[in-house]
Amino acid sequence: MTDPALAEALQRAVDASEDVRGRTSPNPPVGAVVLDAAGRIAGVGATQPPGGPHAEVMALRAAGERARGGTAVVTLEPCNHTGRTGPCTRALIDAGIATVYYAVPDPNPSAAGGAATLRAAGIVVHEGLGADVVAAGPLRAWLHRTRTGRPHVTWKYAATLDGRIAATDGTSRWISGPESRAIVHADRARLDAIVVGTGTVLADDPWLTARLPDGSLAPHQPLRVVVGTRDLPTRARVLDDAAPTLVLRTHDVDEVLDALTAHPDVLLEGGPRLAGAFLAARRIDRIQAYIAPVLLGDGLSAVRDAGVHTIAEAIRFRRERVETVGADVLITLVPDREQRSG
Amino acid sequence: MTDPALAEALQRAVDASEDVRGRTSPNPPVGAVVLDAAGRIAGVGATQPPGGPHAEVMALRAAGERARGGTAVVTLEPCNHTGRTGPCTRALIDAGIATVYYAVPDPNPSAAGGAATLRAAGIVVHEGLGADVVAAGPLRAWLHRTRTGRPHVTWKYAATLDGRIAATDGTSRWISGPESRAIVHADRARLDAIVVGTGTVLADDPWLTARLPDGSLAPHQPLRVVVGTRDLPTRARVLDDAAPTLVLRTHDVDEVLDALTAHPDVLLEGGPRLAGAFLAARRIDRIQAYIAPVLLGDGLSAVRDAGVHTIAEAIRFRRERVETVGADVLITLVPDREQRSG
Ligand SMILES: NC(=O)c1ccc[n+]([C@@H]2O[C@H](COP(=O)([O-])OP(=O)(O)OC[C@H]3O[C@@H](n4cnc5c(N)ncnc54)[C@H](OP(=O)(O)O)[C@@H]3O)[C@@H](O)[C@H]2O)c1
Ligand SMILES: NC(=O)c1ccc[n+]([C@@H]2O[C@H](COP(=O)([O-])OP(=O)(O)OC[C@H]3O[C@@H](n4cnc5c(N)ncnc54)[C@H](OP(=O)(O)O)[C@@H]3O)[C@@H](O)[C@H]2O)c1
Repeated sequence: MTDPALAEALQRAVDASEDVRGRTSPNPPVGAVVLDAAGRIAGVGATQPPGGPHAEVMALRAAGERARGGTAVVTLEPCNHTGRTGPCTRALIDAGIATVYYAVPDPNPSAAGGAATLRAAGIVVHEGLGADVVAAGPLRAWLHRTRTGRPHVTWKYAATLDGRIAATDGTSRWISGPESRAIVHADRARLDAIVVGTGTVLADDPWLTARLPDGSLAPHQPLRVVVGTRDLPTRARVLDDAAPTLVLRTHDVDEVLDALTAHPDVLLEGGPRLAGAFLAARRIDRIQAYIAPVLLGDGLSAVRDAGVHTIAEAIRFRRERVETVGADVLITLVPDREQRSG
Repeated sequence: MTDPALAEALQRAVDASEDVRGRTSPNPPVGAVVLDAAGRIAGVGATQPPGGPHAEVMALRAAGERARGGTAVVTLEPCNHTGRTGPCTRALIDAGIATVYYAVPDPNPSAAGGAATLRAAGIVVHEGLGADVVAAGPLRAWLHRTRTGRPHVTWKYAATLDGRIAATDGTSRWISGPESRAIVHADRARLDAIVVGTGTVLADDPWLTARLPDGSLAPHQPLRVVVGTRDLPTRARVLDDAAPTLVLRTHDVDEVLDALTAHPDVLLEGGPRLAGAFLAARRIDRIQAYIAPVLLGDGLSAVRDAGVHTIAEAIRFRRERVETVGADVLITLVPDREQRSG
């Protein structure tokens, strides 16, 4: 097997898993590619909605007889247990696969042991191909939830260089550019849940739906979650039929997360008070800040009341990535290890 | 002349000009390199303090007889007029230089015409080598002042991701990391003036001096400028002997700039109210924002009162550069052309 062929297979597996992200819970969004004995791509597959086949089975079906003597490239260690579907290890063995590369070992005790089972059947098994890309990408939220028992929370916001998310008169359309807004909509369609506070709903009456570039609804919609004790107007857009909505009448961040354990990939879209509460509780696992090259000098700040009074108490993150998106800068941060909570 | 040799000569000329930046006013900080007839570097020079020789003369002196039949690479069109020193065109002709490359044409009518004079003497002259690098770099402030009559103002600040420059209790040490602070000190030593408001002096009692990594004073200190009507304590550090200090008892931004025309390269170091006034007056020519991966959720914002009440009035810049400095992100912005004032 040549390195470029493996790299291409990994990329195809990652892409396939990204395509199903948001629609596989409680199962992880996995991607798999089967190469024939000559190293040509014979089948690509990804996890189907709960009850449907896993990624390996989809890729094997597509490959058919060409799988015999071939190689499987999978983003997660093939599962070893008989859940709603048979074990993937069995399917790989039966199909006559000779070699398996997988990115990330399965942290789930009930599913683990797949590699050992494959090796016992005479298959050559390699762990770690593309592990970083997969663990920081398509499997990030699922791995986090498996490890901590809590959903993975990304807090996304768009602000001016001086940290404002609205002018003094409340206007905020648009701070970030069209490229940033398009990314946000594409991301929403791959999420499990979007969370906002009542303040955002009462101020902006947002739909919180994922929309395609033409404005129509994306086929998959994440769960909409509104947190806070105030009543919402019955005609609030967030209560329409476009997607399911959960209203949580609480101020307790962990109560929110407990209600979302079946939704590992959570996007917190604000506003400043709810973001402050999540920051104070150290329950933000990633920040995506779209910083526009704009100054306001006044208006609403991105965060309020994060419980910090002096620099020594500042909430420290570290940079995961900096990139440009149109005229904006997207800064992605993750908690600084030393301050990370367990 | 090979391209790599020219590129190296240009880089050496830029470096030489950077070394004298802050010490040449009213003359521009120019760098020059003389290559011998075989294309080897024979002499490097930069503008000396007012009354001293220009860059070309310094480089020619270093090259001596090796200049004959050689090439000069200069960051600015050689001057044609007899000021306190003789014209550089004369010196290049007398030394027997065969070819001249210069980056930027001299916008100053009294000094221009150098290229024509050189050509009339039979020298081959090329304009534009490294023009972008030089115009955005060492000659930026001088070109701006020549073009607009006003000093070039860079507003630099260090803030958290949420735009805060101090916590609620006033503490601000340290938001940015040591790498960012080291750059700021190195920059200060190459400036003509540092400007702050009385609020910053009264709150922080800063020295506003350029310091070397060992903490000692850098050989060149910019003019310190304090703007505002309140009295400063006579023992304010900014009034010590380490560097000259100008106190301007005004709130008029253009009055400040008028007082600084002999200081083309001005750094505005805050605080938020003075930055707001400069932004409102559209007198910020560059923003250097050091954004630390830290959240405060409260405290002092980087800007106050920039005269903006609604998004349509937002002060728009465009990205010149994004880079990482240690754990921080340095975002450099310049005014968006459409909003740029004349
Ligand atoms: N540019 C952007 O990216 C962006 C994104 C979102 C929002 N916004 C702006 O944000 C503004 C709304 O600000 P906001 O702070 O009121 O919005 P918010 O954070 O969405 O809502 C605040 C509400 O959240 C509830 N809440 C739940 N848990 C809480 C806790 N632990 N601590 C405090 N409150 C908790 C409270 O509701 P109850 O009082 O009902 O109990 C509180 O009043 C709007 O102007 C909107 O435009 C901007
Ligand atoms: N992190 C950073 O990068 C950074 C940098 C600098 C300062 N800071 C912080 O900023 C805080 C001080 O804030 P500040 O806003 O008071 O500081 P400031 O902007 O330095 O000073 C404000 C004063 O500037 C004078 N001023 C001159 N022209 C003005 C105009 N057109 N409009 C308004 N005022 C004008 C006024 O002085 P009079 O009232 O005397 O007339 C005003 O009170 C301190 O806590 C300091 O730590 C942080």
